[in-house]
Amino acid sequence: MDKRKIILDCDPGHDDAVAIMMSAIHPKIDLLGITIVAGNQTLEKTTRNALNVCQYLNIDTKVYSGCSLPMVRDKQVIADDIHGETGLDGPVFDTLTRKAEDKHAVNYIIDTLMESDGDITLVPTGPLTNIAMAMRMEPRIVDKIQEIVLMGGAYQLGNVTPAAEFNILADAEAAHVVFTSGRPVVMMGLDLTRQALCYPSIVERMEKIDTKAAHLFADLMRFFGQQQKKVFGWEGGPLHDPTCIAYLIDPSVIEVKPMYTEVEIRSEKCYGRTLCDYFNITKEEPNSLVAVKLDNEKFWDIVEECIKLYN
Amino acid sequence: MDKRKIILDCDPGHDDAVAIMMSAIHPKIDLLGITIVAGNQTLEKTTRNALNVCQYLNIDTKVYSGCSLPMVRDKQVIADDIHGETGLDGPVFDTLTRKAEDKHAVNYIIDTLMESDGDITLVPTGPLTNIAMAMRMEPRIVDKIQEIVLMGGAYQLGNVTPAAEFNILADAEAAHVVFTSGRPVVMMGLDLTRQALCYPSIVERMEKIDTKAAHLFADLMRFFGQQQKKVFGWEGGPLHDPTCIAYLIDPSVIEVKPMYTEVEIRSEKCYGRTLCDYFNITKEEPNSLVAVKLDNEKFWDIVEECIKLYN
Amino acid sequence: MDKRKIILDCDPGHDDAVAIMMSAIHPKIDLLGITIVAGNQTLEKTTRNALNVCQYLNIDTKVYSGCSLPMVRDKQVIADDIHGETGLDGPVFDTLTRKAEDKHAVNYIIDTLMESDGDITLVPTGPLTNIAMAMRMEPRIVDKIQEIVLMGGAYQLGNVTPAAEFNILADAEAAHVVFTSGRPVVMMGLDLTRQALCYPSIVERMEKIDTKAAHLFADLMRFFGQQQKKVFGWEGGPLHDPTCIAYLIDPSVIEVKPMYTEVEIRSEKCYGRTLCDYFNITKEEPNSLVAVKLDNEKFWDIVEECIKLYN
Amino acid sequence: MDKRKIILDCDPGHDDAVAIMMSAIHPKIDLLGITIVAGNQTLEKTTRNALNVCQYLNIDTKVYSGCSLPMVRDKQVIADDIHGETGLDGPVFDTLTRKAEDKHAVNYIIDTLMESDGDITLVPTGPLTNIAMAMRMEPRIVDKIQEIVLMGGAYQLGNVTPAAEFNILADAEAAHVVFTSGRPVVMMGLDLTRQALCYPSIVERMEKIDTKAAHLFADLMRFFGQQQKKVFGWEGGPLHDPTCIAYLIDPSVIEVKPMYTEVEIRSEKCYGRTLCDYFNITKEEPNSLVAVKLDNEKFWDIVEECIKLYN
Repeated sequence: MDKRKIILDCDPGHDDAVAIMMSAIHPKIDLLGITIVAGNQTLEKTTRNALNVCQYLNIDTKVYSGCSLPMVRDKQVIADDIHGETGLDGPVFDTLTRKAEDKHAVNYIIDTLMESDGDITLVPTGPLTNIAMAMRMEPRIVDKIQEIVLMGGAYQLGNVTPAAEFNILADAEAAHVVFTSGRPVVMMGLDLTRQALCYPSIVERMEKIDTKAAHLFADLMRFFGQQQKKVFGWEGGPLHDPTCIAYLIDPSVIEVKPMYTEVEIRSEKCYGRTLCDYFNITKEEPNSLVAVKLDNEKFWDIVEECIKLYN
Repeated sequence: MDKRKIILDCDPGHDDAVAIMMSAIHPKIDLLGITIVAGNQTLEKTTRNALNVCQYLNIDTKVYSGCSLPMVRDKQVIADDIHGETGLDGPVFDTLTRKAEDKHAVNYIIDTLMESDGDITLVPTGPLTNIAMAMRMEPRIVDKIQEIVLMGGAYQLGNVTPAAEFNILADAEAAHVVFTSGRPVVMMGLDLTRQALCYPSIVERMEKIDTKAAHLFADLMRFFGQQQKKVFGWEGGPLHDPTCIAYLIDPSVIEVKPMYTEVEIRSEKCYGRTLCDYFNITKEEPNSLVAVKLDNEKFWDIVEECIKLYN
Repeated sequence: MDKRKIILDCDPGHDDAVAIMMSAIHPKIDLLGITIVAGNQTLEKTTRNALNVCQYLNIDTKVYSGCSLPMVRDKQVIADDIHGETGLDGPVFDTLTRKAEDKHAVNYIIDTLMESDGDITLVPTGPLTNIAMAMRMEPRIVDKIQEIVLMGGAYQLGNVTPAAEFNILADAEAAHVVFTSGRPVVMMGLDLTRQALCYPSIVERMEKIDTKAAHLFADLMRFFGQQQKKVFGWEGGPLHDPTCIAYLIDPSVIEVKPMYTEVEIRSEKCYGRTLCDYFNITKEEPNSLVAVKLDNEKFWDIVEECIKLYN
Repeated sequence: MDKRKIILDCDPGHDDAVAIMMSAIHPKIDLLGITIVAGNQTLEKTTRNALNVCQYLNIDTKVYSGCSLPMVRDKQVIADDIHGETGLDGPVFDTLTRKAEDKHAVNYIIDTLMESDGDITLVPTGPLTNIAMAMRMEPRIVDKIQEIVLMGGAYQLGNVTPAAEFNILADAEAAHVVFTSGRPVVMMGLDLTRQALCYPSIVERMEKIDTKAAHLFADLMRFFGQQQKKVFGWEGGPLHDPTCIAYLIDPSVIEVKPMYTEVEIRSEKCYGRTLCDYFNITKEEPNSLVAVKLDNEKFWDIVEECIKLYN
C-alpha cells in the first residue's frame, strides 16, 4: 500500500490540531515527525499545543521545536485574535508530560531528508521558516523533497492585509525560498480554504461520533468559529490546514490548477502577497499547483473518517 | 431634472467608444467635454478614435487631447493585443474632418472645474494621468470635483499582471494621486466588469436595433470579443468602461461596497495593484465605493436604451 | 557675445536668493524668467520671497508661480529648520508691490521652450516638480532644452536622510523624470556644495562691497550660517544653488565627471537617493555630468563680481 | 593578559587569507574557530582556500564549512573578477590534506556561543549568512555575543553597485538581521578600507621579512593588486578584512564614530546599501561604530608584526 511519508511542519493553532489528528491516524499517511514553528502563537506555545494534542490522542510521533523568529522580519506576528491566548483556546488538557525532542526542527528536517530516498513530502501548515532555513542551511535537501503540500497564500483576498494571508505574511522571505526552490509546491490558499467553512452543523455532526477525537474537534471548532465570526463576520471558520491532509488522502477532493507563483518580499503594502498567475499572463512555467475548488461533501467525509478512526 | 454634468476622460478603445456613445445621448447625463489620454493606444490614435466616434454619431461635444506619457513611468504601455493597431479596429470610418481643440486636456479640466460650482463628476475610463496632472498642477480643483467614477483596478485578479489591471498599471502614480485626493471615488474594477461579458447573443440583440449606434456597437464588439478569446479564452469581452456610464444613469445597476483602497506604486511585481480592503482589516476609513456586483439584465437594458436613442 | 539664455526654477530660500541675484545681473547670462516651486517653504512663501528679492534689487524679470505639491508624494516637505518661518528669514524687506504673473509656471516653461530655437538652459535649484510636470504635459519640449544645470542629490551623504538630499527627496519622481529625459544634466550635488561653505570671513568680505546686493547677501548668510550650525554643526552654510550660476558663468570653476545617475523612487529608506555610478560599475552610458570638485577661490571671486555689479 | 576570543567567519579571498594569518598568530587574539561562507567564491572553494592557508602556515584551528547560499537571494554572487578562478589565485599550495570538520558552521557558532560566558567576539569578513542563520535558528545566542566586528558596507560609494559593497549585497537580509540584532556592531566599510591600499611598496616591505607568511602575503597581494587595477584603476588593492583584526589588536589604529545603521533590503537598485546616519539626522540611537579613519602607518606596522611572528 502506498502510504505517503510526510513531515508535518505546523504552528498549532486550531486547524493545525485537526491536521495533526488526521495525519497521525489515517492509513494512507506515514507521519514521520512533527516539527513546530512560531506562527499562530509563540514557539513555546505552539510546541506546547502540539504536545498536548499528541498526549491527549496518544499519538507517539516525535515533536521537534524549531524557529521562534521569521528569517528576516524583526518580529513574529501571531494570530491571537483567532487562536486565543494559548494558541489553542477551547479544549482543556490534562497536565502535560510529553516533551519535545532536543534536536532542532531544522536539523531534524535536514537529517531526515538527507537519509531518505527522496520519498518524503513536506506538509507545512504554518509560516515556512523551518523549511526555508533547512533549505538554506543544507541546499542538498531540496532534491530529496518529493513534494511540498502547504497551506498559505491567496490569489484573491488576503486575511491579515488586503494583499496577504497570515502564514506567508508571517515570513514572506521563507515563502519566497520555498516557491523558488524548484520543488513542486501544492498551495492550499484562502481561495480554497474559504470553501471549507466549518458551520455549526458540521461541528454537531462530528461531535455525535463521540470519540476523544470527536470531542477535541468540537471543542476546537466552537472556539474557532466564534473568533471567525468576530473578525470576519462568518458563521463558520475556514478549516485551513486539514485541506492539505485531505488532499494527501484523496487528491480528488481538491481541484488544483498549475500556476506560476511568486511571493512579494520587497513591498511594504503587498508584503507576503502570493502572485499566482491564474491566466498565465506572464507566460512563465508553472511552479505550483494552486487549489481552486473544494469538493465540500467529500472533504467533510474524510474529516469524519479520520475522527472515527480514533475509537 | 437632475442631469449629471460629467467630463469623460478616456482612451478609446472599444469599450471607451461605447461609453462615449452612451454618455453623449442619455438624458440623465450632460457630457461637458471629452478629454483624451494615451492608454489603449498612443495619444494620437486614441484622440483620432474619439473624433471618429463623435463624427460618426454626430456628437458635437468638444474633444481635448491630453497626456501622451504616464507621470513617472518611462514608457507608455498600450493594449494593442486587445484593441488592435488603431486602438479601435473593427469599424470602418469616413475620412476624419473633426479636430481636437487646441487647449490641452489638463488645462481644460483645470479651467472647467475652477469655473464650476462643484457639480462636475469626472469619469476616467483610461489611465488617470490627465486627472492626476490636473490635481497636481492646480490643487484647488480637488474640492471642486463632485465625484470620480472610474474604470480601473481589481481586488481579485489583474489582467496585465497577476496583480494589476491595465488602467492602473499604465500610470499607478496617477492612480495613487487620485485615490489619495480626498474626493469620493467609485471604482469599477475587473471584479465588476468581468460580470459584464458581451456574449455573441448580446451583440446580435443590439445589432437588431439597426441604428447607426447599433452597427457601431456590433462592429466594435465583434472585434473586441475575438481578441478577448485569444488572450483570456472567453467567449465575450468584458464591457469595462460603459459600467461607469450605466452607474451614472442608474446606480441600482451596480452594487458597491465602501472600502479603503490604496495603490501600490513602490513594488516591481505588484506595481499598480489596487489594495481594496474588502474586510476592513486595516480599520482605515473607506475612501472609495468599490463595485462588487452587476445587475446583468438591467445593465444590458441600459446599453440598449442608449443605442435606441440614436434613431 | 554668448549670453546663456536660462529659466531659473527655484524655491527661495537663502541660497536661491543669491542665485537670483547673480543670474539677473551677470552679462554672461540672459535670465528669461523666474519660475517658482514649493520646496524650502510653501509655494506662497517661495513666490513671495522671489518677488521680494526682485523688488529689492530692481530685477524686472517676470516671476511665474508653479506647483505647490510634489508629483506623487502626498505632502510637501519643507526646510524651515534651515530657511526659517518665511523661507527667507534674516533680511527685512519693504512692502511688496511686485506680483507674480497669472500664467502657471508649467505653462510658461512649455510655451517658452516650444517657441524657442533649442537654446534655453533650465536651471532648477529646488524640487524638480515644475520641470517634470512640463516634460510630461508636453513631451515635445524635451528636445528643445539645451541643458539642465541643477542643484540636487549626493553620491556620498544626504542631508535630509542618510540617503538623500532635500531637493531630490522633496520630489524624487520628478527627479526621475528629469534624469531619464535624455537631455544632458549637470548635477551640483552636496558632494560639491559642501565645498562651498560660506564662512563668516566670506560674509565680511562681501559685506564690505557695500552695495544693496552686498547687504542682502550678508543678511541672508548670517541667518543661514546660524541654522547650518544648529543642524549640522558647521561654521558656514553650503551655498548650494549659486554653484549652478557660477558654473554657467565660468565652467572651469567646477570639475565635473560623466556618470550614469539613477534616482531611487521605489524604496522607503533610500527614496530620493541619486545613484551616481562614480566608478562606472554598471557600464551604463553616462546621462549626467556630476560635480566633484570646486575651485573655491574662483567661486567666491565670481560671487563677489556679481555683488559688485549691483552698484 | 586579555586575549580576545574570536570566531573568524570568512570567505577566503585574498584579504581573508591575510586576516586568518594575522588572527591565528597574534598574542592578543584567541582564534577559537574558523567558519566559512560562500562569498568571494563558492563555498567549496572558500573552504578549500581556508584549509590551504591553515595547512601552509601550520595553523591548527578547526575549520567549519557553512552556508553555500544567501538567506533569501536566489543565487550567490561571487567576486571572481577580484579573487580569480580559485578565489585565491596567486600563491601555489601543496596537495591539501587538511579537512573541514563535519559539523555545520551554523551549528558550531550556536553551540560555541551557548556554552560560552558571553566573552566571544564574532568577526565576519564575508557575507553575513552564517551569523544571521545562527541568530535565527537559535535567538538565545544573540545575548551571548560580546561584539561583532565586521568588514562590509559603505556610507559613501559602493563597489559592486553604486549603492552597495560586496559582502552586504551578497546577503543583505543577513546583514539586516545582524544590524538589528541589538548587539554592538563595529563596521569596517569601504570608507575605511579604501584608506588601506596595499601599494607595491608595501608588498616589497613585507616580502623582505622573508618568512613563509611574508611570501604568502606577497603572492596574494601581487595578484590582488593587479585585479584592483583592472576593475577600479587603483595601484594597490584595499586590504579590507585585516582591518578587523588590526582593530582587535589595537583599537587606536582605527577611528570609529557611533552611527545608526540600517540595511536596505527592499529596493532593487539600493539593495545592500548600508544607511549609516553620519550626521544623526534620524535621531535614532546608534547601533554601530562605523570606521571613518585609518592610522595608515600603525596599520601596516601591525600587519608587519604579524608576518614576523611566523618565523
